Amino acid sequence: MLRQHEVAERIKQYILQNRLGPGDPLPTEAELCAAVGASRSSVREAIKTLTALDIVEVRHGHGTYVGRLSLAALVESLTFRGLLSRSDDFRVLSELVQVRQTIEQGLAGPILAAFDDGLHGELLDLADQMAERAARGESFIEQDREFHLLLMEPLGNELITQLTAAFWDVHAIVAHTLDTTPESVRETVEAHHAIVAALSAGDVTAFTQAVEAHYAPVRRRLQEGPGH
Amino acid sequence: MLRQHEVAERIKQYILQNRLGPGDPLPTEAELCAAVGASRSSVREAIKTLTALDIVEVRHGHGTYVGRLSLAALVESLTFRGLLSRSDDFRVLSELVQVRQTIEQGLAGPILAAFDDGLHGELLDLADQMAERAARGESFIEQDREFHLLLMEPLGNELITQLTAAFWDVHAIVAHTLDTTPESVRETVEAHHAIVAALSAGDVTAFTQAVEAHYAPVRRRLQEGPGH
Repeated sequence: MLRQHEVAERIKQYILQNRLGPGDPLPTEAELCAAVGASRSSVREAIKTLTALDIVEVRHGHGTYVGRLSLAALVESLTFRGLLSRSDDFRVLSELVQVRQTIEQGLAGPILAAFDDGLHGELLDLADQMAERAARGESFIEQDREFHLLLMEPLGNELITQLTAAFWDVHAIVAHTLDTTPESVRETVEAHHAIVAALSAGDVTAFTQAVEAHYAPVRRRLQEGPGH
Repeated sequence: MLRQHEVAERIKQYILQNRLGPGDPLPTEAELCAAVGASRSSVREAIKTLTALDIVEVRHGHGTYVGRLSLAALVESLTFRGLLSRSDDFRVLSELVQVRQTIEQGLAGPILAAFDDGLHGELLDLADQMAERAARGESFIEQDREFHLLLMEPLGNELITQLTAAFWDVHAIVAHTLDTTPESVRETVEAHHAIVAALSAGDVTAFTQAVEAHYAPVRRRLQEGPGH
């Protein structure tokens, strides 16, 4: 296993030394073996490890590329932890809600500073779609995800965008088994409209309160415990 | 590759269905092959992928266990992204500083609420050690890491503790090549003492300002750009 780890490290060094970036092709397997001084089987195994971390991406029939270096591995690991601890008072979900709320509220200043008419239109449209879908008893998971990503996008901080997406995905998977009531769904939809209104008014306090209200239904549900 | 992914998924299902937790032993390779209906070589490969994600841990000479499900993969992926973009205006480090500051400032309320005499003694001791080491021209990286982890520990949110550790580790690796001046080192040490004083006084505003001051030297250095 040390050997496998070492070969993976050498491939990473190769990527760095050759100044390759996400999406750039890696050399052929034979060339890579020569470059890192390892056997085909060792290189193949190392490639698999690096694929799990999204450092390398294998496109079948095309070749091997530098990966997107996304936080896919974080999602994988957190989701699994969430599923494992499902009996443990929704521990991962509680933790996730605190992190999501802290980041959204903590970035109120920069979010408000970056807010403009274009973003207002897009967020309002998504909140309206959520309300319509909820009224028809449909899920609005896509719109919800898009809304939270759009909030962060103007900050231009790729790490925050990736963390937001990762946390949202894990939240959606882990919360999947949670019961919702028509009341809590209505509350969630209203909170999104309240977030848009607060942004539009340039009101930090109202924004902070709307984010708090957004997580209130899931917080209540978590306090009831898994038995309910 | 689909096959490998599928076998990894089945092993995860096996862990869930058998209610195994971190540190619990997995069955022997032969038993696992039978349980998931796959060949030895497929199971071995899947185990390697799951090891990269810290979902499985191989202890040589002992066997295979459920991993600690840490955010090791996040550190790996972020560090590599940081190294790759080293020429890119320290992009990852800038992003990381914003996330770390947002989380620490955003959790001011809960951190202050959980603060007690025991924690005060420990944090003060660490800040004093940093000052002493800095005066002798020594690095205080261990004390610094411990300080930021201890701040979060009373919250009892394992995800926040893991993220704090992960972000700190990546920060330390990526910032390694940054020059420091005796002035900026002194400023950093003082900021840790100011954080302790603000906590001790129960003063949220002072705490927020001290956290801001803590990241000021690295922010200034990042604004200068990589050429300096």
